[in-house]
Amino acid sequence: MKMNKALNAKKTEAREYQTPASGIFFTVKEVLYEGRSKFQRIEIIRNKDYGRVLLLDGLVQTTERDEFYYHEMLVHPALTSHARPKNVLIVGGGDGGALREVLKHPVEKAWLVEIDGKVIEACRDHFPWLKATFRDPRAELVVADGNVFIDKVRETFDVILVDSSDPVGPSTVLHQEAFYRKLKSKLNPGGIIAAQAGSLMLHLDSHARKRAFLKKIFKRAALYLGPVPTYPVGMWCYDFLSDKVDPAKIRTLYIPDGLKYFNPDVYRAAFALPNFLAARLAKGR
Amino acid sequence: MKMNKALNAKKTEAREYQTPASGIFFTVKEVLYEGRSKFQRIEIIRNKDYGRVLLLDGLVQTTERDEFYYHEMLVHPALTSHARPKNVLIVGGGDGGALREVLKHPVEKAWLVEIDGKVIEACRDHFPWLKATFRDPRAELVVADGNVFIDKVRETFDVILVDSSDPVGPSTVLHQEAFYRKLKSKLNPGGIIAAQAGSLMLHLDSHARKRAFLKKIFKRAALYLGPVPTYPVGMWCYDFLSDKVDPAKIRTLYIPDGLKYFNPDVYRAAFALPNFLAARLAKGR
Repeated sequence: MKMNKALNAKKTEAREYQTPASGIFFTVKEVLYEGRSKFQRIEIIRNKDYGRVLLLDGLVQTTERDEFYYHEMLVHPALTSHARPKNVLIVGGGDGGALREVLKHPVEKAWLVEIDGKVIEACRDHFPWLKATFRDPRAELVVADGNVFIDKVRETFDVILVDSSDPVGPSTVLHQEAFYRKLKSKLNPGGIIAAQAGSLMLHLDSHARKRAFLKKIFKRAALYLGPVPTYPVGMWCYDFLSDKVDPAKIRTLYIPDGLKYFNPDVYRAAFALPNFLAARLAKGR
Repeated sequence: MKMNKALNAKKTEAREYQTPASGIFFTVKEVLYEGRSKFQRIEIIRNKDYGRVLLLDGLVQTTERDEFYYHEMLVHPALTSHARPKNVLIVGGGDGGALREVLKHPVEKAWLVEIDGKVIEACRDHFPWLKATFRDPRAELVVADGNVFIDKVRETFDVILVDSSDPVGPSTVLHQEAFYRKLKSKLNPGGIIAAQAGSLMLHLDSHARKRAFLKKIFKRAALYLGPVPTYPVGMWCYDFLSDKVDPAKIRTLYIPDGLKYFNPDVYRAAFALPNFLAARLAKGR
């Protein structure tokens, strides 16, 4: 155990088990932040290839090099499909990447409701993109439990984005029926919800279970896909929920300049599901 | 070096650096095969989550759990688009996964030209799917350098699949202009070539360089994408080359039963390129 202690004293590698017997590793060039909040252990390390890497309880949340895949695919399908998104809510997303993408649209107000204020502070200090993002006068930052906030807030929203952690552990409530019913009650007519839904291959049962109740709540409840290199097995799922907008008849109404990943072709393509996923969804929960 | 020897004696983990400072690891449940051929070090390990894993010179080539992503996306776009593929050539692919997918089509003959006979032997002994594949009377197995074979063979082919290792190292020649000119000379009228082209994010320069010469050789030279969880950064590129078939006007003529990944929607979607890739290709080599 002395050996382990010595390693921790000078952390040389960050490892994440993505399955019980496999995972990814990052050589640590520098530990930029290490702390513990009421909710989780927070680390920001620097890696030669991926730049700054945020880990919560040892799980990679975002890296400087590949965060655009995730944040663009979470935000722009919903935002580009809405006729006029004025008021947008982000549940989670304390790293600020989703907020940055939302603010590329001509929205009037973008709420970010993050449970862990320490994540925001750590990211604001160590992720360069956040400085401008949080200075934007349209950004409204709330440190609160999203599930409690949604009960109390009087505002209603044109687009709601759920940028939670995975459907296992502390964020489980953000993947359940009651939460989505509440979200719907705060959605303006014509509104759209997009939510991160977990790994393509590792959360198959969760996709099937969630689909079963989402189809009861929303007229349109589609799943779409996008790659995220540093997320478990590299391919991520997102929910697209609306009573009005049919993602099979997508109209992209406003595409911001300077996107690295998202375009209308990519958007349409994201809804093509591989056979094994379609079969699991068809089987039901 | 003694230390390394001791580690090999009881290997507990297989690690692959996918970039100089990051990568993936697999806990080793059992080492099924360990050997060295004239060309490379060959290992087959068993992992609890991914099943059998083939490594060549320490790089993951195929795993039991996710090989279908790669093999289906290499084989079926070309095979399902050809009006009547009778004679098919696979260059590389000693693990037999591509051959298995080709044989799901009503082809008359499927050639597999693999440089390393030891890879075939090791995989045949340890990957269960290969037994039936190599027993198929339509399979023609040749142990030879693909680049030499293509000079000598008198046959011509309806579809050629390049299932090589990456565009760096010993397979470099299989990613060069001279090789693709030779392949074209062995292609029947209306023929299609599909080739593995490397990682989306890590081989950007290689994609741009290859595109520049492929466009001189073929009327249609498109790049398409598909996820492969255990390949570097999880998203893989493939070339689709033809003088006749336009992948933008795809007709899927024959879809075999029982595919886990591929379907016509997935096929169309695979040609949607993210902005950063399209921009790099547009910039040229």
